[in-house]
Amino acid sequence: MSTVPQQAADARVASIDLANATRAEKDRALLLMAARLEEREADIVAANEVDVRNARGASLSEAMIDRLTLTPARIRAMADGLRELAALADPVGDVVRGSTLANGLELRQVRVPFGVVGMVYEGRPNVTADAAGICLKSGNAVLLRGSGSALSSNAAIVSVLRQAVADADLPANAIQLLDATTRDSVKELMRARGLVDVLIPRGGASLIKAVVEESTVPVIETGVGNCHVYVDEAADLEKALAVAMNSKTQRLSTCNTAESLLVHAEIADRFLPLILPELADAGVTVHGDARVAAYDESVVPATDEDWDTEYLSADLAVAVVDSLDDALDHIRRHGTGHTEAIISESVTATRRFAARVDAAAVMINASTRFTDGGEFGFGAEIGISTQKLHARGPMGLPELTSTKYIVTGNGHTR
Amino acid sequence: MSTVPQQAADARVASIDLANATRAEKDRALLLMAARLEEREADIVAANEVDVRNARGASLSEAMIDRLTLTPARIRAMADGLRELAALADPVGDVVRGSTLANGLELRQVRVPFGVVGMVYEGRPNVTADAAGICLKSGNAVLLRGSGSALSSNAAIVSVLRQAVADADLPANAIQLLDATTRDSVKELMRARGLVDVLIPRGGASLIKAVVEESTVPVIETGVGNCHVYVDEAADLEKALAVAMNSKTQRLSTCNTAESLLVHAEIADRFLPLILPELADAGVTVHGDARVAAYDESVVPATDEDWDTEYLSADLAVAVVDSLDDALDHIRRHGTGHTEAIISESVTATRRFAARVDAAAVMINASTRFTDGGEFGFGAEIGISTQKLHARGPMGLPELTSTKYIVTGNGHTR
Repeated sequence: MSTVPQQAADARVASIDLANATRAEKDRALLLMAARLEEREADIVAANEVDVRNARGASLSEAMIDRLTLTPARIRAMADGLRELAALADPVGDVVRGSTLANGLELRQVRVPFGVVGMVYEGRPNVTADAAGICLKSGNAVLLRGSGSALSSNAAIVSVLRQAVADADLPANAIQLLDATTRDSVKELMRARGLVDVLIPRGGASLIKAVVEESTVPVIETGVGNCHVYVDEAADLEKALAVAMNSKTQRLSTCNTAESLLVHAEIADRFLPLILPELADAGVTVHGDARVAAYDESVVPATDEDWDTEYLSADLAVAVVDSLDDALDHIRRHGTGHTEAIISESVTATRRFAARVDAAAVMINASTRFTDGGEFGFGAEIGISTQKLHARGPMGLPELTSTKYIVTGNGHTR
Repeated sequence: MSTVPQQAADARVASIDLANATRAEKDRALLLMAARLEEREADIVAANEVDVRNARGASLSEAMIDRLTLTPARIRAMADGLRELAALADPVGDVVRGSTLANGLELRQVRVPFGVVGMVYEGRPNVTADAAGICLKSGNAVLLRGSGSALSSNAAIVSVLRQAVADADLPANAIQLLDATTRDSVKELMRARGLVDVLIPRGGASLIKAVVEESTVPVIETGVGNCHVYVDEAADLEKALAVAMNSKTQRLSTCNTAESLLVHAEIADRFLPLILPELADAGVTVHGDARVAAYDESVVPATDEDWDTEYLSADLAVAVVDSLDDALDHIRRHGTGHTEAIISESVTATRRFAARVDAAAVMINASTRFTDGGEFGFGAEIGISTQKLHARGPMGLPELTSTKYIVTGNGHTR
C-alpha cells in the first residue's frame, strides 16, 4: 500500500507552519541543512556508492553513471547552493499590489507560498537538495519523487535534510521523499488534488507529457526545448557565427541548446560556407534541406522529423528560408515555445521577430544558452517553464508563490 | 462532425494578429462592437425571444427565465460594458521586470496575451459580450461555449460582434461561438491542448469539477465559494452584525456570499441573540449546531453536510467555536479557498487569521461581498479564481496575459 496520500496530508500540515515561518527561521534551517550535508559527507558518499554499484550492474551508460555519482566536491556544491539560497530575498510577504479603495477599504495583494509542491525528476541526486532548498526558502512543503536509480542517495540526503529542518525548529515533514521503486507513487501524486497545490515535472519529454495529460493537480510544464537560431539577411556575420556556434555547442544536452538553424536565402551564400566547416570541426552533424546540402557534401539530408527533434546531441537541423516571415512560420510549426534567437542588425526585423515569436524567451543577437535562472540573475532556478499559465521561462523563488488579497475595513458593507 | 478543432485552429491564426494589434486598434473595435449591439437591438431581442419561448416550453424556473431574458436596457448595459473596457489601460506590452545584466545583456519581461482562451459558461447571454470584450482588450482570441438555453441569443450577439471586429480591421475569428447543442464541444475544447492556451469554466460546481478533472488544456478554476464569517471574541458587535448580515443577505446567489457563520463561544451569549432574530426577519433559515440551537427554537439542526454546502439561497450554517484556532480549523476543513472574513478589534487575532487562512481573499471587518473585480477597482472581471496557480481572486485584464522574456545582446555568448 502506498503512503503518498498520507505523506501529502502530512506535508499539508507542515506547510501551514512553514508558510508562516520568518525569513530568519528559514535561512537558519538552510544553513543548518548545508552544514549537515558536509558533516555527513561520508555517509552520503557511501549511500551513493550503492546506487552507482547497482547502476553498473544494470549496465547504465558511463554518462548516466557520471550524473549519478556524488563526490565530496559535489556534496560541497550542494551545500553551497543552500547557502546561496539563504542569501536571497524572501518572496513571501511581498506586497504585489496595494491601494485604498474609494470607500476606504485597504486592499493588499500579498505573496504567499503555494503550500505543497510535488516534484518529479530524473537523474542527478543534487536536484534533491536544490529542490528541497528552493521550496523551503519559498515557504513550501515539498514531496520529492526522484529517480529509481538514485534511491539510496536520495534517501540519505533527505534524511540529513529533514533532521536539519527539525533541529532548526521547522517541521521535518516539509521535506519528504516518495517511493521511487514504483510508478504508482507518481500516479498518486498526480491525483492528490486538494492536498498538493502544484506539480513540477523535470525530465524527458515523455515524463512531462504523461504528467501534463494525467494530472488533476495543476502542473507547471518544464523544459522541452526545440530552440532555433534565425540568421537574418541583415545579420552581422561574425556575431551570427559566434552566437550560432555557442547556442549549439557550448553544452549539448540542455533544453536551451539550439537544435535548428534557419538562414535567410539572401545571406546563405556568405554564411553557410563560414559555419558549415566550423560545425564539422566541432563534430556536429548537420541535417540540412536541399539548399543547405548544396554547400557541403557532409550534410545529411534532413527528414520531416528532424525539424521537430530535440536532439540533445551533436546534431543540428539547418534550413534556408526565403524571408523573416518564413522563419516565423517554421518556428510556429516546429518550436516548443522555449527560446528562439534572431541575429540581425535591423531594428525592424528584430522588432517583428520579438513581437511575433510565441516563446518564453526571445534572444536578439545573443545565444539561446542564456535562458537560465542563474544567467538572468534570479539566484536560484527550479526549472524553465514552457507554458503560459503562471510562470513562463526560468522559474526562481517568486514563481513558487501564489498571492492572497487581504482587505481591511471598519465594518464595511455593500 | 464537430468543428471545434477547426475553430480552434482559426482562433490561433487570428490570435497572432490580435496579439500585435495596438491599444488604439482594439479600442476602436470595442467601441464599434458597442455601437453595433445597440443598432441591432431589435434583432437581438427577437433572437432572445426564441430562447425565452423554448425555456418556457421546457418549464424552466422564472428565475432562470429572468436571467436569460434580454431587454433593450440589458443590451445597452452590455454595450456600456464594452465602452468601459475601451477606457481601461491595455496590459499588453507592460514591462513587468527589466534589468541590464552584468554582461551587458538587456533583459525585459513583457506582458503578452495568452493567445487563445476557451470560456465555458452557463446562463446569462450578457456574459457572451463581456467575455468577448475582455478577451479582445487583452489581445486574446476567444472560443465561447455558452449555455444551450441561450443558443439563439448568443448566435445573434456573436454575429454582431464578429462583424464589428471585421469592420474595425481586426480578425473576426478572434471571437467564435462553439456548438452549444452538444457536450462534445466541451470535451473537444478540453482536449485542444496546443491550440487553446487556457480554459476558464464559469458556472456550477459540477461543470468546474468536470473541466478541472478532464481538461488537458490548462484551467483556471473559478467561483465555488463556501465563504465564512468568523465573529471573534474581540469583535465589535455592531460591526459584526452589519458585516455578517450583509455577507449573507446582500445578494444570495453569488460566490462571495457567506454560507457559514462561526461565533466565538465567549461572545455567543451577546451576539447570537442579536443576529438570530435579524436573520429570521430577513427570511434566512439558520442551520445551527447544538450550542446555536439553544438560543432560538427556529434553528434547524445542522448536519455534517451543511458545513460543506454552498447554499446560494436564504440558508446559513452557524456554529459556535471555542477559539480562533478552532475557527481556522473549521475553515481549513470546509472552506473552498474563496473568501473568509474575521470580525475583530484585536490586531493579534486579525493578523493570525489573515496569515493562516488559505484563501484568495481575507476580509478584516468587511463583508465577503467585496471580493469582486469591480469592487477591487479592476474595471473588468472575467471570473474569480479559487486556484493558486497563475491568478487568485478576481481576474481582470492583466490576469488574462502571460509574459515573454526579450533579451537583447550584441553577439553575446556563454
